[in-house]
Amino acid sequence: MAPEPDPDDGARVDRLAAALDAADADAFVHVGDATDADLRYLTRLSETPHEYGFVYADGEATLLAPPELDTDDDAAAAFSGRIEESQASDPMGSRVVDCLTDRLDGRADDATVLVPRHLPHDAAVYLEQAGYGLESTPVVGEARAVKSDWERDRLRAVQRAAVRGMQRARTILSAATVEDGVLHWKDAPLSAERLRRQVNATLVAEGVVDVSGTRIRVANGGEAGGLPASDPIVVTVEPRGADGYYGLLTRTVVVDSDGGWERRAHVGVEAARRVALGELEPGAALRWVHSETVAEAGSFGLGAPEGDRVHGVGLSRREEPSLADEAAVGTVVAVKPCAVDEKGRVALADLAVVTEEGCELLVDASTSLSP
Amino acid sequence: MAPEPDPDDGARVDRLAAALDAADADAFVHVGDATDADLRYLTRLSETPHEYGFVYADGEATLLAPPELDTDDDAAAAFSGRIEESQASDPMGSRVVDCLTDRLDGRADDATVLVPRHLPHDAAVYLEQAGYGLESTPVVGEARAVKSDWERDRLRAVQRAAVRGMQRARTILSAATVEDGVLHWKDAPLSAERLRRQVNATLVAEGVVDVSGTRIRVANGGEAGGLPASDPIVVTVEPRGADGYYGLLTRTVVVDSDGGWERRAHVGVEAARRVALGELEPGAALRWVHSETVAEAGSFGLGAPEGDRVHGVGLSRREEPSLADEAAVGTVVAVKPCAVDEKGRVALADLAVVTEEGCELLVDASTSLSP
Repeated sequence: MAPEPDPDDGARVDRLAAALDAADADAFVHVGDATDADLRYLTRLSETPHEYGFVYADGEATLLAPPELDTDDDAAAAFSGRIEESQASDPMGSRVVDCLTDRLDGRADDATVLVPRHLPHDAAVYLEQAGYGLESTPVVGEARAVKSDWERDRLRAVQRAAVRGMQRARTILSAATVEDGVLHWKDAPLSAERLRRQVNATLVAEGVVDVSGTRIRVANGGEAGGLPASDPIVVTVEPRGADGYYGLLTRTVVVDSDGGWERRAHVGVEAARRVALGELEPGAALRWVHSETVAEAGSFGLGAPEGDRVHGVGLSRREEPSLADEAAVGTVVAVKPCAVDEKGRVALADLAVVTEEGCELLVDASTSLSP
Repeated sequence: MAPEPDPDDGARVDRLAAALDAADADAFVHVGDATDADLRYLTRLSETPHEYGFVYADGEATLLAPPELDTDDDAAAAFSGRIEESQASDPMGSRVVDCLTDRLDGRADDATVLVPRHLPHDAAVYLEQAGYGLESTPVVGEARAVKSDWERDRLRAVQRAAVRGMQRARTILSAATVEDGVLHWKDAPLSAERLRRQVNATLVAEGVVDVSGTRIRVANGGEAGGLPASDPIVVTVEPRGADGYYGLLTRTVVVDSDGGWERRAHVGVEAARRVALGELEPGAALRWVHSETVAEAGSFGLGAPEGDRVHGVGLSRREEPSLADEAAVGTVVAVKPCAVDEKGRVALADLAVVTEEGCELLVDASTSLSP
């Protein structure tokens, strides 16, 4: 499927131009394949296992494509800059140097090139040996934090698929019967793996292409035999859509609750979720939102696991803003309150977009503890 | 699902030891997350968005894990070396330097560290600033080329799922009806997207976690309306299983063939496939297998597209051996004969494992042009 063009192409390039100005640099360079979220953001490449080079100089973006470009994939369909193909299989670092030297009229001695911090080491060596001075830049990660309308539409679409996947899990769990404390469905024990495959079938029927983030967690077992009837089952779906954007939704369900720890924990985690969504607004430090979320669960006597309870989501499952950042309008943030102790785990996770007024869930879904 | 341990852990570490000996180097270092196939190979990490460090020195492997390790994933369950957690969020490059300095008793001045060519640039800068000399090594890519029994089992399992996905496509295409030259299925036009989702549902029901490689190609259109009844439909499935290994299967189908170009092209591509599988044996140069494959299709008057018709497959969709390499026993190679001209495209693709005697298909599947 040829990807739809992002009408905000220009805005992405403008940010590179501003970063070059601010750093008094001459060019921006990156090398990677379409599993690299920065490269995917800059080029809108679709899935491809091939290595690409990206050179931005003098206000123009150039994509250095592999020989296989025109046949094995239509990766470049959505790229709005110039595309340079090559029949030779020169190392991409060397092709980047050639392109840069051409664009900068041979001027390497006093030229500064901005690169992402994870530029492949061998490409950096080619650039340095050619005389370019390299400077790491956070500009792409920062640009990715604030989502365009086009990106928010993609995130909302994949989050909608996530909600459908969760509904499928709820449907199966409410249809399940209990035998000797273990869930059964369609005349066989309902294992975590069986439930996961059913959820994944729903996700891909919704157009999702990567379901590796689907997780079914229980305190004890659930894999070989069946899921427990009276313990919390934490269902997480974290699907990636065809355009590369991730969704995230976690719900905790108990089929046959005895009203004990898990109910109290669930009330506390729901309260922590409300606090997080209440605190998330433009200018809020994510570290503050995180600590308020943990503190609210703590006020119910609940222990929190390690790890940040808020972070950005987009072309990566975890991206900026991070705990060190402030929320800005247009950022999409995962809100993940969680309680753990020796009795088990209760967790919720949602995606919210930060608005002028505060934040709103990308897609709403019931938090009910009962399936 | 906790990944099963690979009984060949020792063999992977032995290769690093041999590479250090051969290069007279002191340590091997890598940094990345589990989307990095080299890191996944070395550690058997399961899916995780977190950055890890890997340090090998003095015969021992150490995994530098993120603070979130114990809660957000059980990524380290299958790692057989030492695991160092951290509550601080120091840059991974700095943690790698600390670990290395500790392991090498502070000796940085004369120490050489081997790194993969795609080590992130910022980690390289930390190491160089600490006084370590870096040398790129191809050892991990080379080690990955030859698959252990454990890896071959994973590849065979995901390839078996690929065959089921292809059977699903054939079932739908043979049940399709023709209206005005366009395929219909279950009372609606059968678009490429509809077919793709059906195939993907079968793939994930087989336990596959990434179906982004499923492609339905026709010469003209097929997306918005229905697929053409009388033109070749090239179906590719390239699924990734839960352990990270990729399958690959391509078949070309014509529902209502008029026996023209596509039949002759299909005979030629089948012949090219036989030639490729006949030439693929220990010691065979992949460039030779490639050119013989292209030449055989050419002898039927068929044009070949750009790109190599043979390459390794494993934790990446495209890895060693490449055209520059020779086939070795235990390598798993994609064989992809293809014909294109203005009338369309006919393609086949399979995975074969190189054996003492020659090669054998990981899983066999009909090549029939009729669904």
